[in-house]
Amino acid sequence: MEEYFKSKLNRIKRGANRATYDVNKINTILDAGFIGYVSYVFQGKPMAIPMAYGRMGNKIYLHGSQANRMLTSLLVTKEMSITVMHLDALVLARSGFHHSVNYRSATIFGKATKVLDPKEKTAGIKCFMNHMMPGRWEGVREMNQQEFDRTLVVSMEIETASAKIRDVGVADEPEDINLPVWAGLMPIKQIAEYPISDKDLPENIEIPKHVLDYYHKNKVH
Amino acid sequence: MEEYFKSKLNRIKRGANRATYDVNKINTILDAGFIGYVSYVFQGKPMAIPMAYGRMGNKIYLHGSQANRMLTSLLVTKEMSITVMHLDALVLARSGFHHSVNYRSATIFGKATKVLDPKEKTAGIKCFMNHMMPGRWEGVREMNQQEFDRTLVVSMEIETASAKIRDVGVADEPEDINLPVWAGLMPIKQIAEYPISDKDLPENIEIPKHVLDYYHKNKVH
Repeated sequence: MEEYFKSKLNRIKRGANRATYDVNKINTILDAGFIGYVSYVFQGKPMAIPMAYGRMGNKIYLHGSQANRMLTSLLVTKEMSITVMHLDALVLARSGFHHSVNYRSATIFGKATKVLDPKEKTAGIKCFMNHMMPGRWEGVREMNQQEFDRTLVVSMEIETASAKIRDVGVADEPEDINLPVWAGLMPIKQIAEYPISDKDLPENIEIPKHVLDYYHKNKVH
Repeated sequence: MEEYFKSKLNRIKRGANRATYDVNKINTILDAGFIGYVSYVFQGKPMAIPMAYGRMGNKIYLHGSQANRMLTSLLVTKEMSITVMHLDALVLARSGFHHSVNYRSATIFGKATKVLDPKEKTAGIKCFMNHMMPGRWEGVREMNQQEFDRTLVVSMEIETASAKIRDVGVADEPEDINLPVWAGLMPIKQIAEYPISDKDLPENIEIPKHVLDYYHKNKVH
């Protein structure tokens, strides 16, 4: 089992029993979503911006306009982190104190690097498109030079990371178990609904397989 | 229409047509969720932690253990921001360049303050419990003094904020419209599934109305 090195930065103290540093588990959390909260500091104030990302091995790819404030700030300060969280349930305990949520979250740390090599830049763009929806890159009009030039691609090699997973039931005080108070889980899911075709589509263009595959994988089961 | 003051910090430049500073619209985004990404700086590195929050008027309440690293750091550095985002659809354009998502996101800024007044602290705890699930506070065993003492409550008065909303269809290049490429929206929703009662519940404890109300409001329709 490959693990990220634990330092003061990524070591989880509160709820350490829920922590993991396992590379595969963290990659699984990253691959289960495509929106991450990218943190940076602007005018002395820390803030986080939700952004689409893609992963290739140990590298994360972000993109934006060449003028994107966050990305251009990150390229100056270098230090960055991305947090991804999936909410799985509300944990409704007998006491307010033990209310919680079930979730899978990962925070990854590294340095922002501008991707200059055209081959890696193209691969990065393809990567985050197919991370959002597998097969989409192959299903759209090819990228042209102007679009390529206007897109800023930033990579972050994951230097260290940690994750936290809570996936159990309510954990009440033993003396509360027999109280006449209902407790349990409220499962939460992110789902896809049936795709809505653009009104300006030419006739005879059907919803392609990669889009229907995504829908069937993510619809309510 | 009451608006937040626009400064260099919160003014949105990219996609300014999607920006809003309207207090009511921002409150609506905050009230549609209960998990926010709280940003802080630790060892020179910016990071964001997902946290449950509640809102009372212009104040946001967070809580955690008295030893919570992020909250105690925030109480030293003061400056903080919280970002909340709801994903509504994948926007699948004819070109990769115009791919996007429909979403509602808000970032709010202010200063972290430890809530010391017992009345405000109790109100803050009640606020984030009922923000997670309306009526839950009234449905659980009453908080005791030890739990009250062990809970750290931090408030942030919203000093400034901005939000971005994208809620339209695909926006392709005019010359791409007639390409034989499918384009459209893939709606995304966060839903609740039927509550799962704790296995140790005493007999005759039924799922209470506030839990069923939440389920019916958030289930697939």
